[in-house]
Amino acid sequence: MNTMMYEMQRLQAISREKGPLCVGLDTDPSYLPPEIIKLYDSPQDAVLAYNLSLISTLAPYTACYKVQIAYYEAMGLSGLSVYSKTLKAIRKSGIPVIADIKRGDIADTARAYARAHFTGEFEADIITINPYMGFDTLEPFLEYVEKAGKGAFVLLRTSNPGMKDIEWLPVTSETDADKPTRVLDVVGSALQSLVQRFPSPDKGCSPFGAVVGCTEESDARSLRDRYPDLFFLIPGYGVQGGAARVAATLLDQSGGVVNSSRGILTAWQKSESLDIRRRSGSLSLTDIVEAASQAAFSSQADLVAAKKALSLEKGK
Amino acid sequence: MNTMMYEMQRLQAISREKGPLCVGLDTDPSYLPPEIIKLYDSPQDAVLAYNLSLISTLAPYTACYKVQIAYYEAMGLSGLSVYSKTLKAIRKSGIPVIADIKRGDIADTARAYARAHFTGEFEADIITINPYMGFDTLEPFLEYVEKAGKGAFVLLRTSNPGMKDIEWLPVTSETDADKPTRVLDVVGSALQSLVQRFPSPDKGCSPFGAVVGCTEESDARSLRDRYPDLFFLIPGYGVQGGAARVAATLLDQSGGVVNSSRGILTAWQKSESLDIRRRSGSLSLTDIVEAASQAAFSSQADLVAAKKALSLEKGK
Repeated sequence: MNTMMYEMQRLQAISREKGPLCVGLDTDPSYLPPEIIKLYDSPQDAVLAYNLSLISTLAPYTACYKVQIAYYEAMGLSGLSVYSKTLKAIRKSGIPVIADIKRGDIADTARAYARAHFTGEFEADIITINPYMGFDTLEPFLEYVEKAGKGAFVLLRTSNPGMKDIEWLPVTSETDADKPTRVLDVVGSALQSLVQRFPSPDKGCSPFGAVVGCTEESDARSLRDRYPDLFFLIPGYGVQGGAARVAATLLDQSGGVVNSSRGILTAWQKSESLDIRRRSGSLSLTDIVEAASQAAFSSQADLVAAKKALSLEKGK
Repeated sequence: MNTMMYEMQRLQAISREKGPLCVGLDTDPSYLPPEIIKLYDSPQDAVLAYNLSLISTLAPYTACYKVQIAYYEAMGLSGLSVYSKTLKAIRKSGIPVIADIKRGDIADTARAYARAHFTGEFEADIITINPYMGFDTLEPFLEYVEKAGKGAFVLLRTSNPGMKDIEWLPVTSETDADKPTRVLDVVGSALQSLVQRFPSPDKGCSPFGAVVGCTEESDARSLRDRYPDLFFLIPGYGVQGGAARVAATLLDQSGGVVNSSRGILTAWQKSESLDIRRRSGSLSLTDIVEAASQAAFSSQADLVAAKKALSLEKGK
């Protein structure tokens, strides 16, 4: 009998206790004012200082962090060093970390990606995977799920308008109503069969979750009902335009975490009092982190309230 | 009038002159014998030495290099430093370099990936892109095509068995025969409309190409005929089981480059004389590079011969 707790189940438990907010550390240097960046040897160092300060401050308000590797790749080798240090600091804090890498490739290459992001300097607890090349590309990751409890969110329904181009395409089948009807349903079915391969009756969700964007309530309802066993990573809340109510719908059943990145990282830009401090030359990194912290607190509260409102409605 | 030559057109011209081989530097340390690795401070240093030696030796036999970033990510930060140095050495040699990164993400994140891989320490001439999240994910790359002549191969029909899971799915449409009928045709149509946006009447192919695996001749023929304007990146030749004849079919019309990685990087393992040298303790990196060089020469000759044989057949 398998007695190991998967990282995904640990995340599920934490999100139920603390609330479903996932803070996205997509920390582009442009999110910080130039006068703060100037205090450091490089923009990379400024980003690291911001991340570390966020990690030590936001713990009470976030279920996990999602680190988007693209922003660090864009800063070159020293950017990836910041990425590595950020992951290490999060893991040391005991909060789960999702590496938003969206990798996907064939056998040996996927094995290299699994090694890259589940071990060593870029080790994360959970990663995101792009399933486009087919389900054999998922296999090399399974070893790390089995042996180390790692997890993966597979792209199912993303929150961008282009989602309609491929994910949402209707697929031909000689069907009955239960057969998959869109590309994303084919991906969902593959995820369901992974649920069968990694059963965890008493301990919660499957180690494989799905990325489901927070965009339209009817989609949210039907995807949530179709995949009750999958834990969701939910982008598109806040800046991207999704509403707490849609997120709450996706948080039913196995639940999920709701990502907010820019809304938290750039919260300082919306504060009048910080604008005054900035103009007087006294804005500090601590002020910026404090604004992020307040935004995280509000987002968490907003999501928890929306979730409660929805259960009350359903309870009627 | 646009007078800039795209990197993709430069690659097309080189491949017509030198032959269509693309050497894949998917240089895993396990491809080198431990006794050679031991001569360096780290496996990463051994990989760098191997890459640099290959780059200075293989020039006559290869149209371009394809560097698979996954293998370097798997070696951590110092692996990515080797990746950066490898790209720089190739670009300095004047041979085009394809970064096989298969990234794909939404707006701001795609913009970060474009900056990461078309500028700075990881600058490549051409990249590979995963289109799964939709065609809005391609937009941020276009700026670099327009301004710097960069190029991209978009995944169309990959060479792995899992290709059938999504790429090959039949798509419902209220069609006539010309309408797309599979997911990959939808991707192909999007690439065709990019051809219209970047017309280059006299100077050859579009800056956007397609990844088309070298697997079945009938598919190869129909994809080649359907997308006459697209330059192809063709994996699956050699170790992965594709044959030169299928590759030759894909090389018709706008042409393409045919990738071989492991068959070249591990050619030394198949040499009896090198096995004898190895057992006597005198195998050197130079021997290994020489074996790779012979394999590249043979692959290039094999592909050029298959291409000639096919044109003779068609000429009959």
